[in-house]
Amino acid sequence: MNPSTSSASVTQLPSGFRFVGITCGIKASGKPDLALIVGDRPLVGAGVYTTNQIVAAPVVVCRGRTPSSSLRAVVINSGNANACTGDAGLRAAESMTERVAAHVGCRHEDVLVMSTGVIGRPLPLDKILPGIDSAYERLGVGSESFVGCSTAIMTTDAFRKSVTAEVTIEGQQYRVAAMAKGAGMIAPNMATMLAVVTTDAPLAQDDLVELLRHSADHSFNRVSVDGHTSTNDTLLLLSSGAGQPLAGEALTQFRDFLRQACIDLAKQLVADGEGATHIMEIRVSGAASNDDANRIAQVIGESPLVKTAITGGDPNWGRIVSAAGYAGPRIQPERTSLRILDMPLYRDGTPLAFDAAKASNLIKSSPTVVIDLVVGDGPGRATRWASDITVEYVRFNSEYTT
Amino acid sequence: MNPSTSSASVTQLPSGFRFVGITCGIKASGKPDLALIVGDRPLVGAGVYTTNQIVAAPVVVCRGRTPSSSLRAVVINSGNANACTGDAGLRAAESMTERVAAHVGCRHEDVLVMSTGVIGRPLPLDKILPGIDSAYERLGVGSESFVGCSTAIMTTDAFRKSVTAEVTIEGQQYRVAAMAKGAGMIAPNMATMLAVVTTDAPLAQDDLVELLRHSADHSFNRVSVDGHTSTNDTLLLLSSGAGQPLAGEALTQFRDFLRQACIDLAKQLVADGEGATHIMEIRVSGAASNDDANRIAQVIGESPLVKTAITGGDPNWGRIVSAAGYAGPRIQPERTSLRILDMPLYRDGTPLAFDAAKASNLIKSSPTVVIDLVVGDGPGRATRWASDITVEYVRFNSEYTT
Repeated sequence: MNPSTSSASVTQLPSGFRFVGITCGIKASGKPDLALIVGDRPLVGAGVYTTNQIVAAPVVVCRGRTPSSSLRAVVINSGNANACTGDAGLRAAESMTERVAAHVGCRHEDVLVMSTGVIGRPLPLDKILPGIDSAYERLGVGSESFVGCSTAIMTTDAFRKSVTAEVTIEGQQYRVAAMAKGAGMIAPNMATMLAVVTTDAPLAQDDLVELLRHSADHSFNRVSVDGHTSTNDTLLLLSSGAGQPLAGEALTQFRDFLRQACIDLAKQLVADGEGATHIMEIRVSGAASNDDANRIAQVIGESPLVKTAITGGDPNWGRIVSAAGYAGPRIQPERTSLRILDMPLYRDGTPLAFDAAKASNLIKSSPTVVIDLVVGDGPGRATRWASDITVEYVRFNSEYTT
Repeated sequence: MNPSTSSASVTQLPSGFRFVGITCGIKASGKPDLALIVGDRPLVGAGVYTTNQIVAAPVVVCRGRTPSSSLRAVVINSGNANACTGDAGLRAAESMTERVAAHVGCRHEDVLVMSTGVIGRPLPLDKILPGIDSAYERLGVGSESFVGCSTAIMTTDAFRKSVTAEVTIEGQQYRVAAMAKGAGMIAPNMATMLAVVTTDAPLAQDDLVELLRHSADHSFNRVSVDGHTSTNDTLLLLSSGAGQPLAGEALTQFRDFLRQACIDLAKQLVADGEGATHIMEIRVSGAASNDDANRIAQVIGESPLVKTAITGGDPNWGRIVSAAGYAGPRIQPERTSLRILDMPLYRDGTPLAFDAAKASNLIKSSPTVVIDLVVGDGPGRATRWASDITVEYVRFNSEYTT
C-alpha cells in the first residue's frame, strides 16, 4: 500500500535543525544509508525505546543519554542494526557519536545514535566514520535535505515515511518534521521501527518527556504488523525551541497537535507492512478501562484469522468477536456488538442478517477498514491500527534464506 | 502434513465403551457428521474447556455436568458449532442429550455434548435427533466403530486423529483410546479443538480431574497453530474402569502414560495446521520458572517471523532470540544460547559461525524442527509444539468469503 500521505510534499521544517542523508557504502545496493540531524543550538530531547530484553547497542547508548536538554545531534545508519554485537558493538556506537561530536564541537554524550538493518554483524566503521565526515559537510535546512535524510534511514520500506505540519497556538506558529522507517520487525534479519520527531516549539524537558510518552502511547504503540517487537525500536522527540516553554492551554494544544502528527506517521508504518493490502482501524469501546480496550484491539489486530478475513474481504464477525473473547480483559458477551465500515453485523450477542456480497465488496474496495467493536457498557475505549496479512507477506518472509 | 501416527491401526480399545459415527445430513458434503460414545455402565469423567469468554452452548452444558461419576454418554456433531446461537442454542444442546438419555435409560444430566462447525447458525435438530436414534442402533465395540466415530467429528481436518495405546501397571493391563479434531481455530467460520479420551483404568473422580488437568497442560495447552482460541474447545476424559481405583505409584505410572498419549494426539493437531509443512518442537530451558519457559516457547511458536523462517528453511536465530526477548518473562541475554536440530547457532549472547546452506537444507528436510533455546541459568523448562505458516494458510483463510 502506498497511501497519499507518504508522498506529501515537504512544505515546512522547524527552525534550528539541519538534515542530510548520504550513501557511505554499508548497503550492497548502493542506496543511501547514513543520515544526520544536527541542532544549531542545544536541543531538548527524549526517547522511547524497545521493550525487548535483547537490545541493540545504539539503544543502550541512547537510553543513557536521554532525557536531556543539551543534545546536539542524531546520527542514523541503515543496512546494519548493530544488534547482538557485544562490547565491540557498544564501542562502535559510541565512536559514531564521538565522530559527530568532533564536528559539532560538543560532548559525545550530547549525540544520539540509531541503527537498523542486519542483526549480528559487525558495524563497518571504516565506511561509517568517513561517511559522517562527508555527511556533516552537506547538512542543509531545505526540504531536499529533509527528504534525503528520511530516505537514508529506509531498509526494506516500500516508501519513504514522513510528516511535516505546522500549528498556530496563541498567535505563534510551531512546526513539526518527523520521519520514520520500518514497521515492527517485518523483514528478514532486518529490525526496527526508527522515528525522529523534530519541532521548534519550546518545551521544558519534563513536559517534552510527558508529551513523547503520550504521543507514543497513542500512535507507535498502537500499530501492529506482525506483533514481533524488534531489538532496535527507537522514537526520539527533539525540540529546538528557544524562549519561554509552552505551558497550560498552549501546551495542551501542542500535545494534541503532536499526537496527531505521530498517529499520521505511525499509520504510514502500518500501510507499509510487508505485502499489506488494507489498514485495519480497530475501535474498541465499552471495555472496563482504556487499557482493556487497547489490549482487546491489539489481539484482534494480531489474529491471523482476522487479518486474513480482511485481506479476503470477508465480513467474518465470528473471528473478530471470538478474538475479543480470548484477549484476556473481561467483556460482556450479551452486550457485544460489531460494525465493519458502518455495517452492523452483530448486536448484543446476536448475529444480524446482512448482505454478505455487498459487505465483501465494500471491504475489498476500502484501503482502510474501520472495525467498531462494543464489548459492554464500560467507559474504556481505544483505537489501534494493524495491517492485514497476505500471501506476499508469507512468501517474502519464508523465501529468504540467511 | 500427514504424519505416520495419524494412520496408526487401531489395535486395542478400552472395555466398557461403544462407539459409532454416522451421516445425519448436517454437512452439505454428505460426509459423516454425528458421533456417539456410550458407556456400558456409569463413567467417571471430567472436562477442560475453552478459556474464550464467548462460549458455545454445548460448552455451557458440559461445564455444568462435569466432573461426575455417573456419566453415560457423549454425543458430538460436526458441521455446526452451535455457537453464538443464544437461548435457542442452549435448548438445542440440551435436547440432544435428552434424546441420547432416552435411549440409554439415564438422566439427561449424565450425557455430554460437543459441537463443531459453522458459528452463528441454528442447529438442525430435525436432522440430528433422528440421527441420534439411528446412531444408537449401530453402536459397536470394534475398531471399525471407533474409526467411524473419530471420522464423524472431523471438519476441515486433512486426516483423522486418534491414539490407541495400552500399558501394564502392576500386572494389570489398561487401555486408552482417544480421538481429536481441529487445531486451534484454523478454518473459515469453523471452530474448535474437540477431543475425547476414553480409558478402562479405574480412577477416582478427584484423581481423574487432576490427571486430565495435568495431561492437558502438557499436551493440548502446549500447541499453537494460529493462536486463535475457539469458542468450542473441549477435552473430555472418561473412565469405564471398575474396581479399586488406581493409587500411589500405579496412579503416577498411569498419569505419565496418559500424558504421553495426549501429547501424541496434540501433535497430530499441529501437524494438521492449515497448510503446515513443519512441526516446530520448541524446548526452552534456563528460565526462572516452568511457566516462564512455557510463555517464552508460546511466543516463539506464534511469531509469524519465526514460523515463516522455518517454512523457508531459514536458520534465522535473530528472529527466535528476539521473540524470546519480547515474550515477557525475564531472560538473561548474555546467557542465551540457541540450537536448531542440534546445530549451535548462538551461544551466551554471541552469534556463532555455521554453514548456512547445510543448516537450511537440514531444516527443509526435517518434518519436525527441534528448537533448543537456553535463556539463562534458571530451573524453568517447557516444551511446546507449533505449526509453521505457509502461503497456503493465508490463501485458504483469505480466499473464503462468508
